[in-house]
Amino acid sequence: MEHTFSPTTYWNTLGPHQPVLEVADGDTLVTTTVDARGFDCDRKQVARRGNPMTGPFAVTGAEPGDTLKVELNSIVPNRSYGFTTASVAPNVVDPEFVPELPPADLVEWRVDPGAGTATLVAPKPESLGDLVLPLDPMLGCFGVAAPKEQAISTATSGPNGGNMDYRGFRQGTTVYFPVFEPGALFFLGDGHALQGDGEISGNGVEISMDVRVTLSLIKGQTIGWPRFENDQFIGTAGNARPLDQALQHATTEMLRWLQSEYGLDVAGANLLLQQCVRYEVGNVFDPAYTMICKIAKKFLPSTGA
Amino acid sequence: MEHTFSPTTYWNTLGPHQPVLEVADGDTLVTTTVDARGFDCDRKQVARRGNPMTGPFAVTGAEPGDTLKVELNSIVPNRSYGFTTASVAPNVVDPEFVPELPPADLVEWRVDPGAGTATLVAPKPESLGDLVLPLDPMLGCFGVAAPKEQAISTATSGPNGGNMDYRGFRQGTTVYFPVFEPGALFFLGDGHALQGDGEISGNGVEISMDVRVTLSLIKGQTIGWPRFENDQFIGTAGNARPLDQALQHATTEMLRWLQSEYGLDVAGANLLLQQCVRYEVGNVFDPAYTMICKIAKKFLPSTGA
Amino acid sequence: MEHTFSPTTYWNTLGPHQPVLEVADGDTLVTTTVDARGFDCDRKQVARRGNPMTGPFAVTGAEPGDTLKVELNSIVPNRSYGFTTASVAPNVVDPEFVPELPPADLVEWRVDPGAGTATLVAPKPESLGDLVLPLDPMLGCFGVAAPKEQAISTATSGPNGGNMDYRGFRQGTTVYFPVFEPGALFFLGDGHALQGDGEISGNGVEISMDVRVTLSLIKGQTIGWPRFENDQFIGTAGNARPLDQALQHATTEMLRWLQSEYGLDVAGANLLLQQCVRYEVGNVFDPAYTMICKIAKKFLPSTGA
Amino acid sequence: MEHTFSPTTYWNTLGPHQPVLEVADGDTLVTTTVDARGFDCDRKQVARRGNPMTGPFAVTGAEPGDTLKVELNSIVPNRSYGFTTASVAPNVVDPEFVPELPPADLVEWRVDPGAGTATLVAPKPESLGDLVLPLDPMLGCFGVAAPKEQAISTATSGPNGGNMDYRGFRQGTTVYFPVFEPGALFFLGDGHALQGDGEISGNGVEISMDVRVTLSLIKGQTIGWPRFENDQFIGTAGNARPLDQALQHATTEMLRWLQSEYGLDVAGANLLLQQCVRYEVGNVFDPAYTMICKIAKKFLPSTGA
Repeated sequence: MEHTFSPTTYWNTLGPHQPVLEVADGDTLVTTTVDARGFDCDRKQVARRGNPMTGPFAVTGAEPGDTLKVELNSIVPNRSYGFTTASVAPNVVDPEFVPELPPADLVEWRVDPGAGTATLVAPKPESLGDLVLPLDPMLGCFGVAAPKEQAISTATSGPNGGNMDYRGFRQGTTVYFPVFEPGALFFLGDGHALQGDGEISGNGVEISMDVRVTLSLIKGQTIGWPRFENDQFIGTAGNARPLDQALQHATTEMLRWLQSEYGLDVAGANLLLQQCVRYEVGNVFDPAYTMICKIAKKFLPSTGA
Repeated sequence: MEHTFSPTTYWNTLGPHQPVLEVADGDTLVTTTVDARGFDCDRKQVARRGNPMTGPFAVTGAEPGDTLKVELNSIVPNRSYGFTTASVAPNVVDPEFVPELPPADLVEWRVDPGAGTATLVAPKPESLGDLVLPLDPMLGCFGVAAPKEQAISTATSGPNGGNMDYRGFRQGTTVYFPVFEPGALFFLGDGHALQGDGEISGNGVEISMDVRVTLSLIKGQTIGWPRFENDQFIGTAGNARPLDQALQHATTEMLRWLQSEYGLDVAGANLLLQQCVRYEVGNVFDPAYTMICKIAKKFLPSTGA
Repeated sequence: MEHTFSPTTYWNTLGPHQPVLEVADGDTLVTTTVDARGFDCDRKQVARRGNPMTGPFAVTGAEPGDTLKVELNSIVPNRSYGFTTASVAPNVVDPEFVPELPPADLVEWRVDPGAGTATLVAPKPESLGDLVLPLDPMLGCFGVAAPKEQAISTATSGPNGGNMDYRGFRQGTTVYFPVFEPGALFFLGDGHALQGDGEISGNGVEISMDVRVTLSLIKGQTIGWPRFENDQFIGTAGNARPLDQALQHATTEMLRWLQSEYGLDVAGANLLLQQCVRYEVGNVFDPAYTMICKIAKKFLPSTGA
Repeated sequence: MEHTFSPTTYWNTLGPHQPVLEVADGDTLVTTTVDARGFDCDRKQVARRGNPMTGPFAVTGAEPGDTLKVELNSIVPNRSYGFTTASVAPNVVDPEFVPELPPADLVEWRVDPGAGTATLVAPKPESLGDLVLPLDPMLGCFGVAAPKEQAISTATSGPNGGNMDYRGFRQGTTVYFPVFEPGALFFLGDGHALQGDGEISGNGVEISMDVRVTLSLIKGQTIGWPRFENDQFIGTAGNARPLDQALQHATTEMLRWLQSEYGLDVAGANLLLQQCVRYEVGNVFDPAYTMICKIAKKFLPSTGA
């Protein structure tokens, strides 16, 4: 079944909040998200800044210990105004280089989903000339209610997802989250028309979105960290600081996955992963950083899921 | 001019050692490297284990403050025996997962440069079946003499390069190193027939190589960290722990590069990099980790180098 | 005014929960805390494990942007049974040393507040003989409701305090917290009869406590991280991972403090702190680590607060 | 036997350099060190800046796998001029706070060993008034030749010691180093009249010293990291980044020590250390940071060394 939902309230934490809608296992949801500062498709502020979330959506029957499967069917900017800030963040450069950074002023982009482009509008550094970049729409922050009855700010991330800012969370990707609360309680927002790795200015090209996702349950499958797959890769996301620890979480989760679902023993999982692993960097701006661990499907045993 | 050099001595540190050969600016060097344990093309141990280096090669006229340009013309395995170890390293998984890792036994691979494949030979985990991976030959450890008259182990890396284990240092890539000693003193070794990101078992498929490189100087150009380019990207390498600091070094070096050679002011460099940056993970096994910061050439201002 | 409060409910998060009692600015609170697993003075489990908190207590008039002053008048174990676990945590030793750690079994201690001792009961490693340690009672986890309407697990810490496990939070110390919610909402629990630095096994000698604290407000004084003072030192607590970042938070907060309240300009604060600073390690077990930055009062300008 | 040695050459790396003197096991050495910028007791520059070292001194019979015992008999400033820099380092404050730091200008101190004081001379921030601090002379950088035939800059530290900048390395402390080269090759320098924890400005009160040390061997005892003892504590030093890893090294070394020399099994060592450990911060400015792990002698089993 497909539900069309127009949000009127937003949350800035991922926690055990009252669901705005309950859907059945396998249902599809068509909804919208506002931008990171709470502005909607009409560039009107309708929510508090700091990655306000649409949701939460409860999935009937979801219980702690299950896995929520989220198919990202479609993520499309629903307006033309996008914004970033002008400087990379102090934490991604050498400490002694920080005084050389420019002010973190707001920068405007014009997004054209039809043409598939984002064009820098203003302020436009003279030295840069015209800057037109290809769109690659994605969700920066989405996930389920946090573990231990916590309500965690959408400025950060954890085992339940959140503000991971990974470019790979685009249309066509399926993401899996561990369920910590009855109903799972799915939240989504913080769309980017495109972004560089790490979201190193603290921003992609921030924009409101039309989103279509399908939510389903894997009953009784317990995972430790977000997992995902697309047509070419399976992957895991570890969220922590420093990056070293995020990488440890993601690598451990992948070794577990290879063993639990791809028929590999510990020796097989270690040998395969070590020579085939690819890492990618999600967010390196927030309190928790995100590291992605992935492996091409073509190298997985054919007995796999 | 092209020099063919057959090494008879090897170094396990990158330091101000006596050059084995002096070449002119622009000369090409055809030589061989032994594997990480010091075994040559005949699988005979001719050097001490721990990434023994061929070299150093002095380049006439190189002085501290210059840049050494190294074109990786060709890197080809010169035998069929390759090895790895069976387990990923304890530092890339969660601390509490370490006891679940298998023993780090030696694993044999058969490398076929003609077919472009590496095939797992033994011990072969039953669960894994046949494992045949595409070759992607590269140098794990190479660079110039370290700064401050240090001699630094080939087990680690620094501003002068060293054991960075980045998959992108393959045939067709040009790498730039800051010069710290007269003659620059170029070393090379630690070839991998292929490797996963991070060299997370402490090994790629380790093998001896036939290598062809062209060495030239950029007089008076002072850089802070290794830089590289290939047909699609320009990139920088930061070497440090944790990965966060390696990323800071690499990002800072890229911002400097964009300003000094691509005609961008600080505002332009910040805006361009933040939305176009790609990070890759080099070594995450050694005392110093390696993070790569890169940007596609197609996004660079046309006034660039 | 003094309030005696007997808790019947407990929280495992620090968040905007309904206060159990509202007290006036300057009031004193006499209450009890259960141990980290929720056992009370009769060794009866009355709360869920994971540092259940007594509270929250609202302070009339407290508003975001104020500071809550907490005088730790008295912290006294109210039973004789204490416990720890037998092993240090995997994250505080070298990754390759982890397999050598013993099992993390529960260990029993007998606490005698009269004699001022904790005596190891069982299991008692033969090699160790009798182990009698001096008591040094403290609160491992206390603080106010988290910022941004979050509810944060008592397994970790942040700007609002939480599970900092710092030995210096003992009787006679005054602690200051930034207020993020109306009423401040003060929580307390996780008493330790004593502990080593870092709480490296994840436990001090865990025990229930009788606690007496005085709560008062500093209206309009906004601080960034917990601060404290005792008869000899003033100090700050930074909570983050890695320790490097916790140290950055604590050092920055101290520099701000020296400037805002001790009449120092930035040059004076830098010069004084650099040669007089003392660091101590709070928790190194939780998701966020704690680093303490302190300076002896005898070195502070006499114009100070 | 006692040797009086007046240095005429200095090294800026700890490596396998030609010894300036060979002494017997148990001999005492009376010598001098220059300050971190190479200025001697007459404030004349006689060595290159960057912690120039007196030495190396070979100890007859020292072989890799032994331990060198260094008794710090006496460390006394031999002039009155000391210096620091005016600002704490960018890496010890929050990245966004860096632009608020003052310039890192040179600051002069007057050191009076007779009175036991260091007095700030100029530039003297008006807000600070007179600043007179108690002397606590120590060696910032000392140790033996590095492992693996490396020559490591005196700007950093490792298993062989080096620039650890720990306040506890003062007169009366005995320090133990692993021997990596024949003769051990002991170096010393970088005296501080006093310093704050972490050497957070990159400087203590830097000064030249008269030093008296006794060097002896523990044949066949192999240790992993520097160890030390004074009248009250035994301790270990871990050198790495981030601090978390330095702490892991130091903690692991202490657990090994408690087992190998204090008659404890793994269970006893874990239980004792976890409740009695004290951590201190050495250098947090250099490429490698230093964390100290210590335990009071009064808690050690009486069967101990």
